[in-house]
Amino acid sequence: MSTVQEPTPRWSTLASKPSSSVIRDLLKLPAGVISFAGGLPSPEGFPLDEIAKACQTVIAKEGKHALQYSMVEGEIALRREIARRETQKGIPTEFEQVQIVSGSQQALDLIARIFIDKGDKVLVESPTYMGALQAFDLCEPEYVSLPCDTEGLNPAAFTEEVCRGAKFAYVMPTASNPTGLTISEERRKLLCEKAREYDMLLVEDDPYGELWYDQQPPASLRQWAPERVIRLGTLSKILAPGFRLGYVIAPADVLDKIAQMKQAMDLHTATFTQLISAQVFSEDLLVHHLPSVRERYKTHAKAMLDALEEFMPEGVTWTHPTAGMFIWVTLPEKMDATEMARDALAHKVAYVPGEAFYAGSAVEKNHFRLSFVTVDPERIREGVKNLAEVIRLRI
Amino acid sequence: MSTVQEPTPRWSTLASKPSSSVIRDLLKLPAGVISFAGGLPSPEGFPLDEIAKACQTVIAKEGKHALQYSMVEGEIALRREIARRETQKGIPTEFEQVQIVSGSQQALDLIARIFIDKGDKVLVESPTYMGALQAFDLCEPEYVSLPCDTEGLNPAAFTEEVCRGAKFAYVMPTASNPTGLTISEERRKLLCEKAREYDMLLVEDDPYGELWYDQQPPASLRQWAPERVIRLGTLSKILAPGFRLGYVIAPADVLDKIAQMKQAMDLHTATFTQLISAQVFSEDLLVHHLPSVRERYKTHAKAMLDALEEFMPEGVTWTHPTAGMFIWVTLPEKMDATEMARDALAHKVAYVPGEAFYAGSAVEKNHFRLSFVTVDPERIREGVKNLAEVIRLRI
Repeated sequence: MSTVQEPTPRWSTLASKPSSSVIRDLLKLPAGVISFAGGLPSPEGFPLDEIAKACQTVIAKEGKHALQYSMVEGEIALRREIARRETQKGIPTEFEQVQIVSGSQQALDLIARIFIDKGDKVLVESPTYMGALQAFDLCEPEYVSLPCDTEGLNPAAFTEEVCRGAKFAYVMPTASNPTGLTISEERRKLLCEKAREYDMLLVEDDPYGELWYDQQPPASLRQWAPERVIRLGTLSKILAPGFRLGYVIAPADVLDKIAQMKQAMDLHTATFTQLISAQVFSEDLLVHHLPSVRERYKTHAKAMLDALEEFMPEGVTWTHPTAGMFIWVTLPEKMDATEMARDALAHKVAYVPGEAFYAGSAVEKNHFRLSFVTVDPERIREGVKNLAEVIRLRI
Repeated sequence: MSTVQEPTPRWSTLASKPSSSVIRDLLKLPAGVISFAGGLPSPEGFPLDEIAKACQTVIAKEGKHALQYSMVEGEIALRREIARRETQKGIPTEFEQVQIVSGSQQALDLIARIFIDKGDKVLVESPTYMGALQAFDLCEPEYVSLPCDTEGLNPAAFTEEVCRGAKFAYVMPTASNPTGLTISEERRKLLCEKAREYDMLLVEDDPYGELWYDQQPPASLRQWAPERVIRLGTLSKILAPGFRLGYVIAPADVLDKIAQMKQAMDLHTATFTQLISAQVFSEDLLVHHLPSVRERYKTHAKAMLDALEEFMPEGVTWTHPTAGMFIWVTLPEKMDATEMARDALAHKVAYVPGEAFYAGSAVEKNHFRLSFVTVDPERIREGVKNLAEVIRLRI
């Protein structure tokens, strides 16, 4: 018998690109490390009992429906509940305006595929969410990075020249990943005015809007320019990431294109988890649950802010989030947080180096992202103390 | 206040293409129609009790894990169960060789994106599964259509010229959608030999392999060329389509590219439904369930074959499936099944016109696909009788 020959590799151009694995490798954490590197919500905050109850109801009431194929747009029951929640927050929304997706990440991929041709201009915050860059990268846009200040994205960056011909601006106005910053109502309004003035679309990613500590954040950008805003939401942070459920609220023509594209990509999102989620919402099972999640996140954020205040050497600054899961730390300019990550690991503490959050060549290396939600307050203090020592040795 | 201006549309090239809506429009069925147009499995065959039980177990045993983010490759518990099932069918498989996807449709999209650049050669059966064409179309390949005979795909079509430079051949060797035909062990072997001879990859789509009537179909193509076969499977036909769970079994380098691509597309497939499915499999809850599904499909297939025999006029032929959900009907060459579909609807019966299943310009119009699984045997007889009348009027 002749030897079997291995097939000749024949990847697409897209799949032939080397993947940047620096960050991924860093995130393979040895045991005993205090990890501030995660982006996971706290499992302590999952409404397990509510979901168990909803499971039973759905199987008993509409089991066959829940297990069958569904429509590409999503289950009407869930779309209605999401529309109802949006309406309650002050922006009247019909279920027809809602498309269910398999997590926000899929929304990013869908948006990339319906808008971006190779070389197209896309505006992103600097820094911006790395998952969005990963999704957009598949369609090879040219990024224009918009500088952020201590209050987050500044609409002053949206000049006519910057906006001209851009496919869209991707923004996270509330509790930004990675900075944790929330932009003001005034900035939101101005951003929408600029979008209208320069005929630009806004992709508003809002995964953390429900995770506020003391005060509800300003309204969605849809408040000021509904015809230009493609709003992304997710159930991952208020219900369960393991359901992989997100949604898009957008003008009708955008939703048409998304549905057409999604049909070819995965037919539709799982019926079963959609109906369970709709059941949880319809019984207002989260009414008592969400406040406790908010309280937990607030406590953890405060623990980390206190520890930073207590331990960090002079020259180091950080953001003060009022919602969400992250704090963004800035080292003196000459320092390199990617390189320092190995030292940090040796001191049993992990973070995500900031460079992952910059588009194209706009990279800054003297930042890192801390997540505080899955670590207990005492461990947060210990981890920040270790981290401060690592920095002190290098500063 | 000035009037709000609508945004200027700025779709990608991909999203700008008109979608062929002939078929979609035809499938919007009025009430009272006997539909043989569906591709849905029978909900009577869903193991509702088994799934309800598995839900409770998973929530009680590992609820927090089931609701949390997971790995892009999929939950190990489910990958193990799938590997075990493959191994039981005679092809030793490790869980590392299994990637979980959000339904087989996503596998098709993933494969397109990792292999196909615009204009690349892709081989498909003629006719082939329309969902595959929809997914591949997004990457704009050039199709080469391989003719099928009454025994399905004939490996004689794989000449050196046809295979040279092709990214892969997409085949459905068992209970093909749309023809219902299963190719023999001899043809499978020959196909794999050709693949080795001409250095070609084979994408083996096997959604219906468990739905055999009397005899288990021949082995997966992996039996004869494991290093060249990318095998796609799904839980949609044996467990629940509403879970949207499929899998890919492939060589390591292909799995690496898939995982990298999937990460950017939707992070991972839902944890919750993966663990429920793993639980159903691990308790062998399907052992008693699958035979009853097979029996149901066999009964329905026989009812339709009997009715075709009884009512169809001379000049009409059809396939005799031994597994799966479909029968492929061929009209005399001059007839147009797409055009005839409206008449059929007027006679309260629906089918899928064959033209949807052809790639590029290889279209043949004198075929249609019948599905028998969601219609009761008496209604099958009535529907086929109506359909025969429509044909008789035109033949």
